Amino acid sequence: MAKASAPGKVILVGEHFVVENQPAIAAALNLRARVLAEVLSGDFRVEVESKNLSQKAVFQREKANKESPLYPIYYAALMTLEYIGLQKPLKIFIDSEIPPAAGMGSSASVAVATVAATAAELGVKLTLEEVSRLAYQAEVIVHGKPSGIDNTIATFGGAIAYRKSEGFIRLEADFTPVALILADSGIPRSTGEMVRRVRALKEKYPRIMDPLYHAAGHLAIEAGKAIEEGDWKRLGELMNVNHGLLSAVQVSNRVIEELVYAAREAGALGAKITGAGGGGNIVALTWKEDGRKVADALRKISRKVYVCDVSAEGVRIEG
Amino acid sequence: MAKASAPGKVILVGEHFVVENQPAIAAALNLRARVLAEVLSGDFRVEVESKNLSQKAVFQREKANKESPLYPIYYAALMTLEYIGLQKPLKIFIDSEIPPAAGMGSSASVAVATVAATAAELGVKLTLEEVSRLAYQAEVIVHGKPSGIDNTIATFGGAIAYRKSEGFIRLEADFTPVALILADSGIPRSTGEMVRRVRALKEKYPRIMDPLYHAAGHLAIEAGKAIEEGDWKRLGELMNVNHGLLSAVQVSNRVIEELVYAAREAGALGAKITGAGGGGNIVALTWKEDGRKVADALRKISRKVYVCDVSAEGVRIEG
Repeated sequence: MAKASAPGKVILVGEHFVVENQPAIAAALNLRARVLAEVLSGDFRVEVESKNLSQKAVFQREKANKESPLYPIYYAALMTLEYIGLQKPLKIFIDSEIPPAAGMGSSASVAVATVAATAAELGVKLTLEEVSRLAYQAEVIVHGKPSGIDNTIATFGGAIAYRKSEGFIRLEADFTPVALILADSGIPRSTGEMVRRVRALKEKYPRIMDPLYHAAGHLAIEAGKAIEEGDWKRLGELMNVNHGLLSAVQVSNRVIEELVYAAREAGALGAKITGAGGGGNIVALTWKEDGRKVADALRKISRKVYVCDVSAEGVRIEG
Repeated sequence: MAKASAPGKVILVGEHFVVENQPAIAAALNLRARVLAEVLSGDFRVEVESKNLSQKAVFQREKANKESPLYPIYYAALMTLEYIGLQKPLKIFIDSEIPPAAGMGSSASVAVATVAATAAELGVKLTLEEVSRLAYQAEVIVHGKPSGIDNTIATFGGAIAYRKSEGFIRLEADFTPVALILADSGIPRSTGEMVRRVRALKEKYPRIMDPLYHAAGHLAIEAGKAIEEGDWKRLGELMNVNHGLLSAVQVSNRVIEELVYAAREAGALGAKITGAGGGGNIVALTWKEDGRKVADALRKISRKVYVCDVSAEGVRIEG
């Protein structure tokens, strides 16, 4: 039996604009998906059980039910088995602290931890690059053509900058002085709808949106510098500006604004939509000592508030 | 005795960005400042009475109290008398529908109507350009170095585009199908503070703000086209995008967002901050038949809601 865990993520700046090759920055959270892998006896199969979903399923190559929400987990394990070249029957048990479908990279963290636990159970040491790449294949099953941000951050931890044309850069940063507070709007995310809305606006008003996207790109670059310099006030300010740009591309709404301003009024250094918008979460950056105050203010209007640290550590084999 | 009136104004797009030579668009509202001018007998003096301010004052050249809120009105009348070359004692009576200090151009409308009523009372016909220029001199007393938008729109009515380097262009438009709803945030305007905040941000992040200002400039150009084409849905959409840009330069707040989204949710074509932000009014564009519905939604959270038409007519000599 082997255990592995991987962190969830939050997008700090650049969502939506990243689609048009502007940079974005994501950070790992100290909410983790934990996965236990155990070789079984008998015929080849992968038994997947998720504590969070209260679901169990058994997958076998030809008979695997692709509609199952557990299928991507099976797929991550299968990719790992095939990569290693050992076809052992497996049991995969998932216990995740990361809320699903919240833009916090839950599926990628589970995939990364599944790959790592599977390899560890088979006594094989994969590089981080290998873990990330195998998890990405499972992400493709879930998301079609994901950017790769989620599996990269779940694998490597810390903070990374990403740009389509340039790939990933790890940011050297010490997030110790700050906390990230996430608060759920209670409105289901509608990533597809939001992406379509933003694209339509961009196509309709290229002469407005092109410079706006450039502004967003420069913002992400400035935010990367602020993170590396530990200039958290500046990062907060840039997050606030970024939020306005997301409001300009019409992915905010009344509830999101209420959360964003509640966080700022309670002393957050910055607060913004994180992810696709239209619902989902906001993220606030605070000094660590102000985390509780900001979280309390948000709890008055949000039913799910997460007080997080940035996790320097990515995927990890557990004791 | 002569009477004149002039309309108030609302900025539809481009506020703040106009400072850096981006275009802005303003429209005249069917809220009017009415001014009555009457030649008195006796020594030279200008008696000014404002019904709205419940104030009266008498001004004589050397002894004129420059601290009086009525001084700019005296000054408008004086400039007109000097321009005409007739030094008659005058009584000026003001009755304005335009809320003062609300970003609706109240002082300029009063100045324009004062100039027009004064000239009419002296039997002199001024051109609109002359009226506007004389009113501007009184605006300088109030505002230091105003753009000239307010006196221009109060004089000419309708909608105008303005750009520092290019001056004014009258937009050919028929606003009949739409209404403009203004709603007061209840937070006093702080134009100076907001202008300083925006300037500081621009100086701190030129590589973000320069393209953002370009986006705002193109937005105003697109909005001008939409107005001339009567494409009100498009104008509304552009106002929404403009609001996001104003949010990005940090002049919005929780109350403003609440008003903006209440208007949009009630069916407004667009809604945004108008003027400096930080307080003051929001403006919503609606189909005329939706005006009441949007106004009702706003009245639940704003104590001062104005349902306005765009006034094609500028300054007018009354009956």
